[in-house]
Amino acid sequence: MKIAIIGLGLIGASVARALNGLAEITGIDRDPATTRKALEDGVISCGGADPALASGSDLVVIAVPVGGIVETAEKVIPHLPHGTVITDTGSTKDSIVRRIDAIWPYFVGSHPIAGKENPGYDASQATLFRDAVCIITPTEASKDRCIEEVRWLWTSCGAHITAMAPDRHDALMAIISHMPHLLSFVSMSLAGDIHFHRELLGAGFRDFTRIAASDPVMWRDIFMANKDHVLSLIDEYMAELGTIRDVIRTGRDQELEGMLRRYATIRRDLYEDKR
Amino acid sequence: MKIAIIGLGLIGASVARALNGLAEITGIDRDPATTRKALEDGVISCGGADPALASGSDLVVIAVPVGGIVETAEKVIPHLPHGTVITDTGSTKDSIVRRIDAIWPYFVGSHPIAGKENPGYDASQATLFRDAVCIITPTEASKDRCIEEVRWLWTSCGAHITAMAPDRHDALMAIISHMPHLLSFVSMSLAGDIHFHRELLGAGFRDFTRIAASDPVMWRDIFMANKDHVLSLIDEYMAELGTIRDVIRTGRDQELEGMLRRYATIRRDLYEDKR
Repeated sequence: MKIAIIGLGLIGASVARALNGLAEITGIDRDPATTRKALEDGVISCGGADPALASGSDLVVIAVPVGGIVETAEKVIPHLPHGTVITDTGSTKDSIVRRIDAIWPYFVGSHPIAGKENPGYDASQATLFRDAVCIITPTEASKDRCIEEVRWLWTSCGAHITAMAPDRHDALMAIISHMPHLLSFVSMSLAGDIHFHRELLGAGFRDFTRIAASDPVMWRDIFMANKDHVLSLIDEYMAELGTIRDVIRTGRDQELEGMLRRYATIRRDLYEDKR
Repeated sequence: MKIAIIGLGLIGASVARALNGLAEITGIDRDPATTRKALEDGVISCGGADPALASGSDLVVIAVPVGGIVETAEKVIPHLPHGTVITDTGSTKDSIVRRIDAIWPYFVGSHPIAGKENPGYDASQATLFRDAVCIITPTEASKDRCIEEVRWLWTSCGAHITAMAPDRHDALMAIISHMPHLLSFVSMSLAGDIHFHRELLGAGFRDFTRIAASDPVMWRDIFMANKDHVLSLIDEYMAELGTIRDVIRTGRDQELEGMLRRYATIRRDLYEDKR
């Protein structure tokens, strides 16, 4: 099995490490220092910046940031023999899948749900996907052989596979990941002069705002790529916040308690009361 | 030194435990099972439900939930000789301080910033306040002797003291604690049917929503007691969320990246890049 991985950041290099001994890995990255390091580390057996290096592979994994996935596919496809399976690792799926499906019939989208705060090659590890969930998003047009090859990829990395339609993926991720990030980011606009009172910041503030320190470029791309779901959830959120604002303003104690109890019950049920 | 503690929950009972050997503690709680347990555990030397039990004390600590603090003060004050110092442990200060100041000239408000998920007596521990911050909120009318006695109380429990005006306390806590709780609570309204996909919930979601499982009655009282600051921060937050909504909707990439970068920088600076 020959696999080409484009983008040797945290995700791409961790895939390469996880497949060590199972496949022959070609690593493609625009940064020569990264491919050199990956070669020295034995993480890849061949490396460089040219997409043409992917031409002899059975499977191509595009592990670049969301905003560059389609463009990367467009650059590599002219070098691939018909039949070469392509997957990606992007955190949004619908627009990516639709655009690559339109130019390559052997594409199946993936989203391994794994990450660390440090996004670079140096943070990569063979065990990153062990017991993680990887969502794959085949469509009606996807060929069974391609789906099986992508399943094999992630299973070999130690992940559990969940399959769903690309739009369903984006709708769920908007709730589970994109909105929490957006709401946490925006809360920083209230922070004002609290840096004068760092000693007062407790565990609640720390945990609630942790994801507000995430990478701005990555999240710009995710919010833009999943615009429709994110916008409609912002509207839902603002409507609910407006309602609770009114309940507080008019002093409706019982109604406020009822709302808070409903929220707390949803959270507790999700984790079966393990916080 | 004789101290009466009213409310033997997590905070009150932890104060009693921390002062073991330093003071003679009378415990007052409406639940007879709790005072009995505290007596058996040697956490208090005298206990019951009657506020009159506080009459011989030098210092009275009101450690009941925010919504009951003023009422509790009104009940205990008729039993106290003039000069008895009172403090409380509420998470909001301005309205509490104004209302008790008006009926008792020996009151100084406190807010020990310590807590655990389990709010009851059984979770109490002598070390709860060790190296925690305790905010005290004296006013211009506060007597030095009363301030010193309340400082002694918290220092003896192991806490570091920060003093500020009650309204300043409420303004800061609205940013640091009340808004994060409110925003996290409200985010649960978006959760929809994600309980079908528990396996997809990652660390970001878990941490962002952890405080949404907080006690509904306690938070109802806090939001109502700090209504003015909370309402004005909700307005600020909705304005900022409306702005970012518009930036996403109209596809202004660079502007979005600029906003996210500004938020991430505030968060990183607060923790000096330790997430």
